[in-house]
Amino acid sequence: MLKTAIDLRVRYAETDMMGFAYHGNYTAWFEMARVQMLDDIGYPYRVLEAEGFRLPVLELNIVYRKPVTFDDRLTIEAIMENPPTIKLHIRYTITCRGEITAEGFTRHAFINPAGRPARPPKRFLDVASRYFSD
Amino acid sequence: MLKTAIDLRVRYAETDMMGFAYHGNYTAWFEMARVQMLDDIGYPYRVLEAEGFRLPVLELNIVYRKPVTFDDRLTIEAIMENPPTIKLHIRYTITCRGEITAEGFTRHAFINPAGRPARPPKRFLDVASRYFSD
Amino acid sequence: MLKTAIDLRVRYAETDMMGFAYHGNYTAWFEMARVQMLDDIGYPYRVLEAEGFRLPVLELNIVYRKPVTFDDRLTIEAIMENPPTIKLHIRYTITCRGEITAEGFTRHAFINPAGRPARPPKRFLDVASRYFSD
Amino acid sequence: MLKTAIDLRVRYAETDMMGFAYHGNYTAWFEMARVQMLDDIGYPYRVLEAEGFRLPVLELNIVYRKPVTFDDRLTIEAIMENPPTIKLHIRYTITCRGEITAEGFTRHAFINPAGRPARPPKRFLDVASRYFSD
Repeated sequence: MLKTAIDLRVRYAETDMMGFAYHGNYTAWFEMARVQMLDDIGYPYRVLEAEGFRLPVLELNIVYRKPVTFDDRLTIEAIMENPPTIKLHIRYTITCRGEITAEGFTRHAFINPAGRPARPPKRFLDVASRYFSD
Repeated sequence: MLKTAIDLRVRYAETDMMGFAYHGNYTAWFEMARVQMLDDIGYPYRVLEAEGFRLPVLELNIVYRKPVTFDDRLTIEAIMENPPTIKLHIRYTITCRGEITAEGFTRHAFINPAGRPARPPKRFLDVASRYFSD
Repeated sequence: MLKTAIDLRVRYAETDMMGFAYHGNYTAWFEMARVQMLDDIGYPYRVLEAEGFRLPVLELNIVYRKPVTFDDRLTIEAIMENPPTIKLHIRYTITCRGEITAEGFTRHAFINPAGRPARPPKRFLDVASRYFSD
Repeated sequence: MLKTAIDLRVRYAETDMMGFAYHGNYTAWFEMARVQMLDDIGYPYRVLEAEGFRLPVLELNIVYRKPVTFDDRLTIEAIMENPPTIKLHIRYTITCRGEITAEGFTRHAFINPAGRPARPPKRFLDVASRYFSD
């Protein structure tokens, strides 16, 4: 299992007139945790992209439990439970003041330099596999 | 059943470095169709808010079938299949050049002026009910 | 002189907790008017990009006179007073209910396929020059 | 003089199809430095808002010197050269790998709980004045 967490502070720009963080901005927060996860295994997303690979989102799901607002300090945790194949599935939780305020997941496909769904680069599978020993 | 569609053109600001519309921006497009739906039944969202009600998103789901990019003309369709109660469930499809490029749904709760989940205002139920005759 | 106007409706996603449209979102509105301007002269921005050119923003200025909020109908006018050279200067006004609510300008450079500041494609100069007859 | 700096990492969500950070997102970065500045003097923006005050942007100016892109580490410096009165003027520089990549300023007005331009709360002036000793 692969598990990463990042901390962030809700930006004023991220709020809406309801007085809370706009629900669409959670997508960028999930992404930041996802990017950190690739950093942590030593295969940063910018390296993957430099090699011509892409990881577009195929599906997004978010359950909003409690609103968060400007200046709130959040922890975004990303969890990959199964080793990556052609597809990638990542779960997320957002925590504020010790409470889970949102949960969700994203599903991704690896797209190779030719623009087609493909297995990730071999080195990526190698570095990732270390976290999924049986 | 309630059904509304809006047309929009993907903004340059909505793209990301993958060269497509950023997946997080679909949330605003769904919302625009939702807002139009309330306009169409004659109970605009700004009226609902002026009366102290809110319709926060409780859950969001998006399945991305094909990417869209800058300047693409999209049709966002919003469909409410069941009359609103305390909760609201809306489905969406995004169409570009005759093809469905994404689908999704949002679930909402009505929040009353006291900040609690509540039934929508009676007049809202009345105007909405016309679309769900049996 | 080249002059274009577009109409738009402020999105809920574009508001912030102050209850108004977030000041940073005006950049995307200016851009939409700019894109329409290139459409109007028959040299769409997507064509310019397809030919390998870019028009990055070198300077941005916005003066906010009155706030606008969710659902407000705005007119964004873009004005190019001088024919484009290596640089481009565009002025903007935002009008809501007959009142100017914001003004600004952007300065741009043409970047050629080699990634360097350059004169725009000849055909671009030709189509634009028609609007700057002396 | 008041001077604050924050560090941030460009989000993927903040890029556009030109391959760089979208120029409109700099507004949120300036704001983050501004928010930190108020934290540093011990009068956080959320406290100011809780007291009914607002600090809307009256003017924004940004000069873009070099593009920055996904994953770049930026330092955003905010500088207030004169003590706040009814108005506030803040200058910013963005630095990446030791080079200034952008500069700008924002002008603000204090808006009191009655919605009118006003002097900031007395305690705000007191805490700020310490940084502008002659």
